[in-house]
Amino acid sequence: MATLSDIGVAAAINILTAFAFFFAFAILRIQPVNDRVYFPKWYIKGLRSSPFGTGAFVGKLVNLDFRSYVRFLNWMPAALHMPEPELIDHAGLDSAVYLRIYLIGLKIFVPIAILAFTILVPVNWTNTTLERSNLTYSDLDKLSISNIPTRSHRFWTHLVMAYAFTFWTCYVLKKEYEIVAKMRLHFLASEKRRPDQFTVLVRNVPPDADESVSELVEHFFLVNHPNDYLTYQVVYNANQLSNLVNEKKKMKNWLDYYQIKYSRNKSRKPSLKTGFLGLLGTRVDAVDHYTSEIERLSRKISLERDDIVNNPKSIMPAAFVSFKTRWGAAVCAQTQQSRNPTMWLTEWAPEPRDVYWDNLAIPFVSLTLRRLVIAVAFFFLTFFFMVPIAFVQSLANIEGIEKALPFLKPIIEMKVIKSFIQGFLPGIALKIFLIFLPSILMLMSKFEGFISLSGLERRSAARYYIFQFINVFLGIIITGTAFQQLDNFIHQSATEFGPSEVIPKTIGVSIPMKATFFITYVMVDGWAGVAGEILRLKPLIIYHLKIFFLVKTEKDKDEAMDPGTLGFNTGEPQIQLYFLLGLVYAVVSPILLPFIIVFFALAFVVYRHQIINVYNQEYESAAAFWPDVHGRIIVAVIVSQLLLMGLLSTKEAAQSTPLLITLPVLTIWFHLFCKGRYEPAFVRYPLQEAMMKDTLERAREPNLNLKSFLQNAYIHPVFKGEDDSDSDEAPEEFEKEPDLVPTKRQSRRNTPLPSKHGSAASSQPEAQDYPLL
Amino acid sequence: MATLSDIGVAAAINILTAFAFFFAFAILRIQPVNDRVYFPKWYIKGLRSSPFGTGAFVGKLVNLDFRSYVRFLNWMPAALHMPEPELIDHAGLDSAVYLRIYLIGLKIFVPIAILAFTILVPVNWTNTTLERSNLTYSDLDKLSISNIPTRSHRFWTHLVMAYAFTFWTCYVLKKEYEIVAKMRLHFLASEKRRPDQFTVLVRNVPPDADESVSELVEHFFLVNHPNDYLTYQVVYNANQLSNLVNEKKKMKNWLDYYQIKYSRNKSRKPSLKTGFLGLLGTRVDAVDHYTSEIERLSRKISLERDDIVNNPKSIMPAAFVSFKTRWGAAVCAQTQQSRNPTMWLTEWAPEPRDVYWDNLAIPFVSLTLRRLVIAVAFFFLTFFFMVPIAFVQSLANIEGIEKALPFLKPIIEMKVIKSFIQGFLPGIALKIFLIFLPSILMLMSKFEGFISLSGLERRSAARYYIFQFINVFLGIIITGTAFQQLDNFIHQSATEFGPSEVIPKTIGVSIPMKATFFITYVMVDGWAGVAGEILRLKPLIIYHLKIFFLVKTEKDKDEAMDPGTLGFNTGEPQIQLYFLLGLVYAVVSPILLPFIIVFFALAFVVYRHQIINVYNQEYESAAAFWPDVHGRIIVAVIVSQLLLMGLLSTKEAAQSTPLLITLPVLTIWFHLFCKGRYEPAFVRYPLQEAMMKDTLERAREPNLNLKSFLQNAYIHPVFKGEDDSDSDEAPEEFEKEPDLVPTKRQSRRNTPLPSKHGSAASSQPEAQDYPLL
Repeated sequence: MATLSDIGVAAAINILTAFAFFFAFAILRIQPVNDRVYFPKWYIKGLRSSPFGTGAFVGKLVNLDFRSYVRFLNWMPAALHMPEPELIDHAGLDSAVYLRIYLIGLKIFVPIAILAFTILVPVNWTNTTLERSNLTYSDLDKLSISNIPTRSHRFWTHLVMAYAFTFWTCYVLKKEYEIVAKMRLHFLASEKRRPDQFTVLVRNVPPDADESVSELVEHFFLVNHPNDYLTYQVVYNANQLSNLVNEKKKMKNWLDYYQIKYSRNKSRKPSLKTGFLGLLGTRVDAVDHYTSEIERLSRKISLERDDIVNNPKSIMPAAFVSFKTRWGAAVCAQTQQSRNPTMWLTEWAPEPRDVYWDNLAIPFVSLTLRRLVIAVAFFFLTFFFMVPIAFVQSLANIEGIEKALPFLKPIIEMKVIKSFIQGFLPGIALKIFLIFLPSILMLMSKFEGFISLSGLERRSAARYYIFQFINVFLGIIITGTAFQQLDNFIHQSATEFGPSEVIPKTIGVSIPMKATFFITYVMVDGWAGVAGEILRLKPLIIYHLKIFFLVKTEKDKDEAMDPGTLGFNTGEPQIQLYFLLGLVYAVVSPILLPFIIVFFALAFVVYRHQIINVYNQEYESAAAFWPDVHGRIIVAVIVSQLLLMGLLSTKEAAQSTPLLITLPVLTIWFHLFCKGRYEPAFVRYPLQEAMMKDTLERAREPNLNLKSFLQNAYIHPVFKGEDDSDSDEAPEEFEKEPDLVPTKRQSRRNTPLPSKHGSAASSQPEAQDYPLL
Repeated sequence: MATLSDIGVAAAINILTAFAFFFAFAILRIQPVNDRVYFPKWYIKGLRSSPFGTGAFVGKLVNLDFRSYVRFLNWMPAALHMPEPELIDHAGLDSAVYLRIYLIGLKIFVPIAILAFTILVPVNWTNTTLERSNLTYSDLDKLSISNIPTRSHRFWTHLVMAYAFTFWTCYVLKKEYEIVAKMRLHFLASEKRRPDQFTVLVRNVPPDADESVSELVEHFFLVNHPNDYLTYQVVYNANQLSNLVNEKKKMKNWLDYYQIKYSRNKSRKPSLKTGFLGLLGTRVDAVDHYTSEIERLSRKISLERDDIVNNPKSIMPAAFVSFKTRWGAAVCAQTQQSRNPTMWLTEWAPEPRDVYWDNLAIPFVSLTLRRLVIAVAFFFLTFFFMVPIAFVQSLANIEGIEKALPFLKPIIEMKVIKSFIQGFLPGIALKIFLIFLPSILMLMSKFEGFISLSGLERRSAARYYIFQFINVFLGIIITGTAFQQLDNFIHQSATEFGPSEVIPKTIGVSIPMKATFFITYVMVDGWAGVAGEILRLKPLIIYHLKIFFLVKTEKDKDEAMDPGTLGFNTGEPQIQLYFLLGLVYAVVSPILLPFIIVFFALAFVVYRHQIINVYNQEYESAAAFWPDVHGRIIVAVIVSQLLLMGLLSTKEAAQSTPLLITLPVLTIWFHLFCKGRYEPAFVRYPLQEAMMKDTLERAREPNLNLKSFLQNAYIHPVFKGEDDSDSDEAPEEFEKEPDLVPTKRQSRRNTPLPSKHGSAASSQPEAQDYPLL
């Protein structure tokens, strides 16, 4: 039982940790040598080409202006400074909308916290249940619902509050959905011409004995969309080729490494062994070896490339079909083409950057089978992930190691090492698993056959959320893992509870008891985690390693940058966990709310800074993830209501049950309403909009040659750099063709513009201002 | 505990009852005077104009050919005689596919029964569990799973059988889905030109200050579908008008009645009182009174009609928009039109006969609200319908009546009356409720806002099925109503079972015990019910009453016919109940299966006869109900698997649980697969098909005036008969315009064709033959 002062101490420690991170960041970020680590976004946008601080050589590495060390938090107002429309222009709609999730957190929980502290806390505090009981209790518990005696009429307050909180949450959600939908539509409407507006992805082109896939596609769309069909681009199976290209890139890195090594120490030519892991085999000259390897791969690549283009078997039964008008594409994407609904499947093409090429040719039957396999696998992953880990743990104890490797016994028996192993080993399997979990989930999504990166990330996020919900939230609340509980439920035939109520009741009882734990969790995982994010320790180290070993030119320096992305698949489920905690504890133990509010505020500032200065999104889905975000907050609301029902039933406040049952029903109805009203804006493209843009464009540019614009938009990335000796530069040139792929990266490198982001003025027409609060 | 011989006696009784019905039917149907009751379909199709048997007056009323009495079952082969393509042409695809549901029953259960009786029954029979126990048991129970001792290895047989039955059912379902989807597509493809192929219903036209709804619709579609838009038809709010027309019709019936009364007895002019129920007020001449009433209504109707046409407020924000091509209509129906997804909602127009006009102008927000209200109402109807009925029952006991109306006491105390009341009263409220239940459910669906009759029927069927599942199936199995059980579950905090297993376990235990009850249920409700259906007692009586009181001309006789329809909303849920029983008991007590097979066979023959000779479908939805049918059988399969799990867990055959959990997962996956593969054929219209038909039509009839064909197709039925003195004949004429509404009723009356249905040869091009078995 933690007291208020315990919590205070923990909070102080965590606040100090956070400040330490911030201070470290403040020092590191103003060192010119780290400039590319902490401001990569500006380099990518071409608005910054060299660190500030000119002068001596030392001045290029270390910041000597000591005044800048004093204002070590001044990045915070700077991060909040950029207005939202400019942010959309600078970093894309996805990022801007992602930040709104944190804002929603504040919008929901600040009023709820105020209400809870003015009404609920006094109601809880002015009881003496805990004082009169024999239980040990803390001041914290006196603030929670535990302090109310059973069958008290004071539970009506909690009931009314539950209604108030639900209505407020729903109100904020609805407002936000409306704003985001409007932002998305405005974004789509004001966008420049992009190939994906005119293009539809066709999958499962049926096999035909007489015609090739290309002919088939051409004929089918000429017949069935005679007015609008323009051109098509078949999809090649270039996975093999892209493997080769990647291998060549790796070889090139090694070549660079050895060349630099040689140039630094001309006395000794670097050499290596060609066998297993460089340990066996004959010793050869490293530079020569990699040069010849690269040549060999180049030949192989050009052979493979010819083979793909000429061999009809490498053409997949899928194609990107482009239309003369946005209207035509919208029609084709939203309708069924052929009798057999599994043939000629059409959907909007993702933007070229967003395509996940490997999955483009999975047949329909295999898709449903894959979905089944993954559903089952995910079920086992979620509920039984502890089994293999427990198994590894049981192997990895000291006795086990001693038995398996008896010669290690004397070393292990040393006290320092023994205690280290005992403290470290049991956790390590779990830790490794949790670190790899997002990658595992991403692999699952890839196996399932999504064809866009955004789709992959959305699905992974959903799975990660479910995993966290079951194993972190429920797992902690019902002490011990959900897996053990399930086992109990199945085998214990005589519990003291009725049937369908057991789970809510059990959880209901233990919720208030876990408040202190979750407060600590929020501080460690939330506060310190967010503060650690801004430090970018891993990219910092890797960048400097690369600079030291690989970099020869300024261009190489730019390539050594790893701006990273927002990581929707890991970040969003984490936020959602805080929504869940906040909503569940709002009525039960309002003391948790301030901690969550601090998290949301801190995270908002930090991520806004990162989005402005660091992250470089790989794709732009125009906030397509919003329905997921909305849906998961609704789930959190409903879970909080169900748990409150369970809690109140243990407090024998049964008369409130019918009123509480009404709440989830209303919430579900609200969700359905929102789904009908706003979701279509995220999945469909209205014909009216398409027609409007088409008409406008026709009036403005009557002589536009759309075909040349669309011809090569959807070519597999490995084909873009035709001359593979410079395979990295070629796509760049490709994208520089006038208006071809007007991504944000258009004028990417070496543009001599000054740095300050004030000058990154919005080039977007009629940038609208949406209410921030 | 019923023995085999008890069941045998019950079966004999029910078989005799069924034969009695058949015999009565055989006698009644060959009486010329009943010809219009038992063969209305042929009159409607115009293939029969007067009963057979010419000659004396008596010969026109009673069949004197005694040979025909001997072959009293000869309608059965006749019913099976008509091949399916001809049946589709004769009665529509809906009816033909409806019959396939019975066929599926046979296809599923005949092989299952054979397998069960060769394998399961011996396995069950050769145990001695029941003999050695102290329980009373019957031979029937010896055939069931109850006879297997706990923890026996024989349960593996049941497990394997469960797999076999599931796979067989899924196989049949898949095959059938495939056939029906093909039939539907073929039907749609080979249909003649129909207005609904070119027409889309637009709802929620947004209000506009400057333009009327008509102008708005015209402009919107001219702009957004410039190539394909043809014309539109606004929707009037004519509910008031149609009430007036109905009232006038009623008055006309009364006029006819009094005129006939007067013509039969010229001595006394019929008179009536104008006040309350004809009991009070001044006495007037009946014929004059109704004549003047009809005149008054006629004036009112023509005023109302002018008002509707001229008053812009009676135009609803909805319209039927027609396109030049099927392709255009398919595109418009499947795409989103405007930014706001709740405006300009487009969907396929139902065929004109199928439109439910009253619901055409319900706004979107109201729709979601209505759905919520109905969902809640249906929940209470299902779980708490016993409450008001129990309340009425408690009022309607003898003591209650004696207290409320003490002067009745001497009468009630008479022994005969008392026992009658005591036996009759308690059940009457429930009986009345159950009779009105389909109507209540239909009202609910109407309130929910469906705009087609087929949609209304489908939704009512779904609700009726849920009601039956919970209150008949579960209700009977857990003895006492589900409502009481729910109450128990909520209040009993100390049962002897674990949580989530209680329901399957409780039910699992009582399933085998209820086998005898359900056998009786199948015989009474199924066998006798189906045999009673063919007798058409209610239409028979009403027809003869009408003939006696109202009919003056041959035309009136035709109108007195009440062919009725299949009644998908009541019939299909009943069949589904038998699927459920059959699948649940297939593993548990296979003895039930033969009874269900007899039901399916009998019902197939009877309903095939009725569809050929009696029913006249109001609309044709081209088997749009099939996904529902398929889905409900899948539900039955899953329920049977879950109950088997519960049953086996009480038998402590726990090692089989993982294998049993796999079954529902596989079944759900199978359902998702079928949904993806076949369902689109029932909800969307592929562009390829549309384009094909358009091209063909353009080649065949290059000078077709489509606009005149579509101009008046979607006019509210009350506007169709412009001269309302003959409001019933006018729509007929309307439909007789060349190719205007080519319904099956085209050449409806008085066509002098001979009767035999052999001559109703298929006029459908390329009628295909689908496998019947």
